[in-house]
Amino acid sequence: MSDVILLAHGSGGKLSHDLVKKTFLPSLANTMLNKLDDSAIFEASGCLAFTTDSYVVNPIFFPGGDIGRLAVCGTVNDLSMSGAKPLYLSLSIILEEGLPLSELDHIVKSVKAAAAEAGVNIITGDTKVVNHGQADKLFINTSGIGIISPGVDISGANAKVGDKVILSGTIGDHGIAVMSQREGLKFSVPVESDCAPLNKLVCQILKASPRIHCLRDPTRGGLATTLNEFATQSNVGIMVEEDKIPVKESVRAACELLGFDPVYVANEGKLVAIVKPSDADKVLAKMKQNNYGRNAAIIGEVSDAHPGKVVMKTKLGPSRIVDMLSGELLPRIC
Amino acid sequence: MSDVILLAHGSGGKLSHDLVKKTFLPSLANTMLNKLDDSAIFEASGCLAFTTDSYVVNPIFFPGGDIGRLAVCGTVNDLSMSGAKPLYLSLSIILEEGLPLSELDHIVKSVKAAAAEAGVNIITGDTKVVNHGQADKLFINTSGIGIISPGVDISGANAKVGDKVILSGTIGDHGIAVMSQREGLKFSVPVESDCAPLNKLVCQILKASPRIHCLRDPTRGGLATTLNEFATQSNVGIMVEEDKIPVKESVRAACELLGFDPVYVANEGKLVAIVKPSDADKVLAKMKQNNYGRNAAIIGEVSDAHPGKVVMKTKLGPSRIVDMLSGELLPRIC
Repeated sequence: MSDVILLAHGSGGKLSHDLVKKTFLPSLANTMLNKLDDSAIFEASGCLAFTTDSYVVNPIFFPGGDIGRLAVCGTVNDLSMSGAKPLYLSLSIILEEGLPLSELDHIVKSVKAAAAEAGVNIITGDTKVVNHGQADKLFINTSGIGIISPGVDISGANAKVGDKVILSGTIGDHGIAVMSQREGLKFSVPVESDCAPLNKLVCQILKASPRIHCLRDPTRGGLATTLNEFATQSNVGIMVEEDKIPVKESVRAACELLGFDPVYVANEGKLVAIVKPSDADKVLAKMKQNNYGRNAAIIGEVSDAHPGKVVMKTKLGPSRIVDMLSGELLPRIC
Repeated sequence: MSDVILLAHGSGGKLSHDLVKKTFLPSLANTMLNKLDDSAIFEASGCLAFTTDSYVVNPIFFPGGDIGRLAVCGTVNDLSMSGAKPLYLSLSIILEEGLPLSELDHIVKSVKAAAAEAGVNIITGDTKVVNHGQADKLFINTSGIGIISPGVDISGANAKVGDKVILSGTIGDHGIAVMSQREGLKFSVPVESDCAPLNKLVCQILKASPRIHCLRDPTRGGLATTLNEFATQSNVGIMVEEDKIPVKESVRAACELLGFDPVYVANEGKLVAIVKPSDADKVLAKMKQNNYGRNAAIIGEVSDAHPGKVVMKTKLGPSRIVDMLSGELLPRIC
């Protein structure tokens, strides 16, 4: 077997079957995937969630993770943000001819580890190969299916005036970690991506408050874009206080150096919850008990002023409107 | 708005939202997609099928279709080949910076038309943009969910000795159409891709014979690879007769010119069914009533000789073993 990806690995023929049997099945095997039919079959009943994301992060390995871990966590998190318990993922990979098989192996093992941490199975997949120079190393798509408990109704359109805005931890870690790896920047305290599956955290806070109004993971576009999406979808104003938003010192320093505002930098293991005021302390306490929520904070509230806008009270006192990200800060961050 | 794709269209911020609102929603709108939450929500109960495929065909426009139609039909067909009625698709697109928006628009309209023909809705999606030169124009992933009627049990592992092998029409059309477009070849009778959704055809033959044993669409790797998969998964021999396999004259001529064997050339609107002998004529008759099955033929049968192998009785008389595709005939065919 060659030690790099060949076009024939994408032929659908012998080498494709070899790749599935030698690279994917040993890590990802389960009774549904092993059948290798055109679709995976499962039984379900109730209210289901379905989501998809393609991952094109560059570089494919970065401090705190890689594109494999990112692809599992990102889709697990999108399901979780709808209040769903993630059940099954698909895994579709576009490979560039010439990619070392050792790198693919490493990524498949990351997929396995992240799926095990989240408690989900990869049950169907696909591999394509394009000629050298027609893609950059590899791109991954994961789609996912989850099940929503009766009574849970989470949407960006559900924020109500008076609700509290809770952030599960520090922002900007993922964006700065990928950026520093890509550009070869060294910081005195290295920044690691926060890339993590948040499904168990969501399960815990939903037990504390089954009627959480909004949940979203502030990935591309950062915290500011997510808050703007909530403000627009719910037609409410959102007021946050800058000095309540947790940012690691190393991330803050990197952002100052690079001219970034941390509220626009991508996260891959954080969530924003909007909850009714009487539940806020309960939800915050539950978050802090989970390792991925230990730096959680209430950062603001929903108001009837400035519907559709996000207003931030700055550390220096005055307030300013924080718009959605415009332009592109960091291409290929996820 | 720019008339080409910019990196900022993949930022998750303003231009990403504009792209969704101006390019995707006008064509694909439905109540589930319109919510723009992290996941789409639907109700279901029973035995479900889940599949995924990424499409990297080059060129993205070819006689008889384009990458948009291909992405919908391919995933609809993978669901159908498990005996599922396709319900919902996801659509995730990786765009190269600089792609003309007019080309994206054209492809989104093809997605819409193919989804309408198949009777499925796109309910969740994602868009990423990579720098110019880091992908070739655009790649699409579609994943899909379908529902399987009670009693249907289709798998490549279900072929039984004595079963008949039915092919739904001519082979090699898609591969030759894409190849001729890519290489600028002209034939006296132009070859068009057979790219088509087969879900209604499958529904009709399942009514005629609810216990069809195997179904598969011979895409990459062609008819020969699909038959080999059945032979291996079911541990049976498969015998086919070369002169019963329908091939258009223009495709046969192109294959001879290019040195291809049509049994290895990709199809995107054909299926192979393996059915018990007493149902074969019923299934064949039903297929012929559907426009996508009008050239269907019984091409062979399952035997206990040579388990795991496919044997073809050639036109000249002697038989030969037809192996799975080895190497790569036509990169980026789907």
